[in-house]
Amino acid sequence: MRELKSKYDILKQQIYIIIYGSNTFAGRLFDLILLGVILLSVLLVMLESVEQLDAKYHSFIIISEWIITIFFTIEYFLRIISNKKPLNYIFSFYGIVDFISILPMYLSFIIPGSRMLSVIRALRLLRLFGILNLVHFTGQESQLKLAIKASRTKIIVFVYFVLIVSILLGAIMYVVEGKESGFTSIPVSIYWCIVTLTTVGYGDIAPVTTLGQIIASCIMIMGYGIIAVPTGIVTAEFASAKKNQINNSKKRICPSCTSIVYNEESKFCHLCGQKLSND
Amino acid sequence: MRELKSKYDILKQQIYIIIYGSNTFAGRLFDLILLGVILLSVLLVMLESVEQLDAKYHSFIIISEWIITIFFTIEYFLRIISNKKPLNYIFSFYGIVDFISILPMYLSFIIPGSRMLSVIRALRLLRLFGILNLVHFTGQESQLKLAIKASRTKIIVFVYFVLIVSILLGAIMYVVEGKESGFTSIPVSIYWCIVTLTTVGYGDIAPVTTLGQIIASCIMIMGYGIIAVPTGIVTAEFASAKKNQINNSKKRICPSCTSIVYNEESKFCHLCGQKLSND
Amino acid sequence: MRELKSKYDILKQQIYIIIYGSNTFAGRLFDLILLGVILLSVLLVMLESVEQLDAKYHSFIIISEWIITIFFTIEYFLRIISNKKPLNYIFSFYGIVDFISILPMYLSFIIPGSRMLSVIRALRLLRLFGILNLVHFTGQESQLKLAIKASRTKIIVFVYFVLIVSILLGAIMYVVEGKESGFTSIPVSIYWCIVTLTTVGYGDIAPVTTLGQIIASCIMIMGYGIIAVPTGIVTAEFASAKKNQINNSKKRICPSCTSIVYNEESKFCHLCGQKLSND
Amino acid sequence: MRELKSKYDILKQQIYIIIYGSNTFAGRLFDLILLGVILLSVLLVMLESVEQLDAKYHSFIIISEWIITIFFTIEYFLRIISNKKPLNYIFSFYGIVDFISILPMYLSFIIPGSRMLSVIRALRLLRLFGILNLVHFTGQESQLKLAIKASRTKIIVFVYFVLIVSILLGAIMYVVEGKESGFTSIPVSIYWCIVTLTTVGYGDIAPVTTLGQIIASCIMIMGYGIIAVPTGIVTAEFASAKKNQINNSKKRICPSCTSIVYNEESKFCHLCGQKLSND
Repeated sequence: MRELKSKYDILKQQIYIIIYGSNTFAGRLFDLILLGVILLSVLLVMLESVEQLDAKYHSFIIISEWIITIFFTIEYFLRIISNKKPLNYIFSFYGIVDFISILPMYLSFIIPGSRMLSVIRALRLLRLFGILNLVHFTGQESQLKLAIKASRTKIIVFVYFVLIVSILLGAIMYVVEGKESGFTSIPVSIYWCIVTLTTVGYGDIAPVTTLGQIIASCIMIMGYGIIAVPTGIVTAEFASAKKNQINNSKKRICPSCTSIVYNEESKFCHLCGQKLSND
Repeated sequence: MRELKSKYDILKQQIYIIIYGSNTFAGRLFDLILLGVILLSVLLVMLESVEQLDAKYHSFIIISEWIITIFFTIEYFLRIISNKKPLNYIFSFYGIVDFISILPMYLSFIIPGSRMLSVIRALRLLRLFGILNLVHFTGQESQLKLAIKASRTKIIVFVYFVLIVSILLGAIMYVVEGKESGFTSIPVSIYWCIVTLTTVGYGDIAPVTTLGQIIASCIMIMGYGIIAVPTGIVTAEFASAKKNQINNSKKRICPSCTSIVYNEESKFCHLCGQKLSND
Repeated sequence: MRELKSKYDILKQQIYIIIYGSNTFAGRLFDLILLGVILLSVLLVMLESVEQLDAKYHSFIIISEWIITIFFTIEYFLRIISNKKPLNYIFSFYGIVDFISILPMYLSFIIPGSRMLSVIRALRLLRLFGILNLVHFTGQESQLKLAIKASRTKIIVFVYFVLIVSILLGAIMYVVEGKESGFTSIPVSIYWCIVTLTTVGYGDIAPVTTLGQIIASCIMIMGYGIIAVPTGIVTAEFASAKKNQINNSKKRICPSCTSIVYNEESKFCHLCGQKLSND
Repeated sequence: MRELKSKYDILKQQIYIIIYGSNTFAGRLFDLILLGVILLSVLLVMLESVEQLDAKYHSFIIISEWIITIFFTIEYFLRIISNKKPLNYIFSFYGIVDFISILPMYLSFIIPGSRMLSVIRALRLLRLFGILNLVHFTGQESQLKLAIKASRTKIIVFVYFVLIVSILLGAIMYVVEGKESGFTSIPVSIYWCIVTLTTVGYGDIAPVTTLGQIIASCIMIMGYGIIAVPTGIVTAEFASAKKNQINNSKKRICPSCTSIVYNEESKFCHLCGQKLSND
């Protein structure tokens, strides 16, 4: 009995290494297969929405989706079983995503059409970062994340400001252009204003009157200057983060004249000639 | 009688703390309610402009707007009464915005349709910055404001230059494309040119002739390079402002002459020659 | 006779001061009036192209344009006469612009319709820079000009590269989409490709086939990264120009330890404590 | 016989100098003519695709293309013959491009219509960089290339992230907007989402429902912030590369140990402690 328990523990550990780890060959292979299956499942949901394809291959797509869902369900339970702290996994970001990924298919028995929601599986593709050891690009201390974090408040203040400007300009354009030009209501005008300020410019709604075109020109030129602000904020943060990273990784202090030595190759202080230790 | 005066003064002060302050619970609550009401009033004006909604809920919207307007009117007078220097408030930015916010509703008796102008209330949403203590983002000395201020003249010169280019290119496109392609007059062509240079590109007017498309391609590629200029200006100012901020945080004060030492490697004060400690 | 000569010389000098200078009251007034007239003349050409306005006010516009042209002609000859080196003026940038500005009206006797070309007068608006003493923004040594100059070659290389990419992608889209979707020829496809890469996106031509939309998506995401390159180049130059400007205006060398002193307020060397002179 | 061999060798060397070199007059002339012919050939392929032109000048275009192809073929063989290591050339980037450039014309005997592929000749235009000695802009160690290389991984991570976001938002818009608004399938919705996020905005597909327009507005404002990220990355790399370049130009070499001294304030070599002179 105890031997069985022990065997089961070993099995659990082996499964853990394969599923969660990516250092062993089996673990790496599992990761790659998983990624392939996720990609396939996202593709299947996408193709199902194309009418001609769905008409032709409906049963094939449905069967494939069920196979994948069962595969994901097994994987989900294996992840819970093999983990020593299953609750940590269940309530982690990936745990929730994994759960939501398999839910829609089972829900489709009760609520027809909810199968479409399984496109949320696309979020599972973020696992690639873990597989490719790209964690240092997205991890807590990464330059990218730090720069985005540092500029977040400024960006929110900026977006709030843009929204207020959009409401005012939207209302003005509604009054100026009127319902004939497509500015049927203030919310639609605000939508148009955001489309213009962000330089997207669909053209589904466009000013027709001369005054409207003059105001629109001003909005566009404003948008020109405005687009520079978030870029400026993010760039300054990136440059600053980059500099800190470089400086911090290198700097030592000379024991004799207490000046700072930035060059990591230095063996002597550049100001007083004192010999430096290299640790 | 004097007691009454004193009681009135205390009431005035209490109102002042609630309306202007945001440190007490009551003041904070008032701010949040005010913000909610402002949001609601902006939403109401927006929804009123949607025909279907207006047809259904016309009287409800009108009554709500009047209730809000009366609430704003009372708030406006309380702000004036409770303030020790009421003129300062009346002619401040927020004072004028508050006044203009309540005006359109009363004017709607005389000029029908002017009620639409009450969308200017959206400007009152800027109060959020005060409430969230985000003043350091928008205050006099903020990094954001300094960077925008420093780049203002350059941006204006740039916009002036872009306008001259737009006039010339607009006229050329008017001659090249002619009235059939939608380039009905030089002002319309200039409008098209600004739409193109700012990369908005509605497509309501688009070149049809080969020569027109070649010129348009050149304008677009020019716009590519041109959009880099304001971004470059603002970013350089941001980076510079950020650096100043960092330098300021590194600064020490000389114990002898109390002047500021920015250089972290300095061993002697640059103004009085006093030896500096390095901690 | 000699007195007459002398009087004429004095007149010439006075005219020179009024026309070319902007330090005296008369000179400043002349500059402002000239700018106003230029603006008016550009507006007139623009309004003439609007059919409704031209139909109504045709003779008024024509007469105004002739008055302005005669005014410009007189100004042009006064500039030549009053200048000591008239050829320098005639072949300078502004001299050529001034000449071309008056030409189209006189040419309209010979070639009808050439009057439209007088929109080139918009270039005369560049004089504003001189009037507002903004020369340091556009002058030889300005930060703006240096940054643009330094990044010019890189921008040209970049644009050349973008053009080659556009030709290739345009040809691919022509083959993929075919004539039904609006990709009627390779040049048109190249035009579409530039419209897309620069994120203008008129939508007059848009891919319809699935493969075409996939390729278009790739082009757009590429354009996303590509637009960052000119911005990056210009910004780096701006930041560098800004830094040089700051550093150069401040740096001195300590006579005792020969280290560089950047702080312009320093009275003592920050490294050896040597007293510094302040010139 | 041996003399003939020797004469042939001299001829080979002369051809090599003309074709590959650009220091002699003949070599420079050949380069310019080649560039002109390449431009001409690209133009011809482009013009052939324009129906009206093709109808009029079909035989002229065909004959010209054959002449150019034969010229390119001769050039290709001369490049192989005159080169001492022909295989190096054949499998180099330019060797492959040169081969592919002549292939489509000969293939057009077997596969009709493949002639269109000869637009790939546009890649040969990259030779201009070599001719204008712009290699330092595109060469291995260029600032441009280093900055792009350093930011490559971050850009890829960023694009991958954008794609996942596009899939999710595309699926949401498909559910919200439905088939009537043009969002006919999830892939089409994803295409729309990329069009919007990159601020291209064709307008061939645009949201019609209120909820769809609200979501679209959020996507656009997101795109606003998102476009700042690649710009920020590339700019920071450019600024960093530029700084390195400047630092390199300030570097001195220690006369004792020949190591590089970057710090311009250094008085002692940081590696061997040798005293440094400051000129």
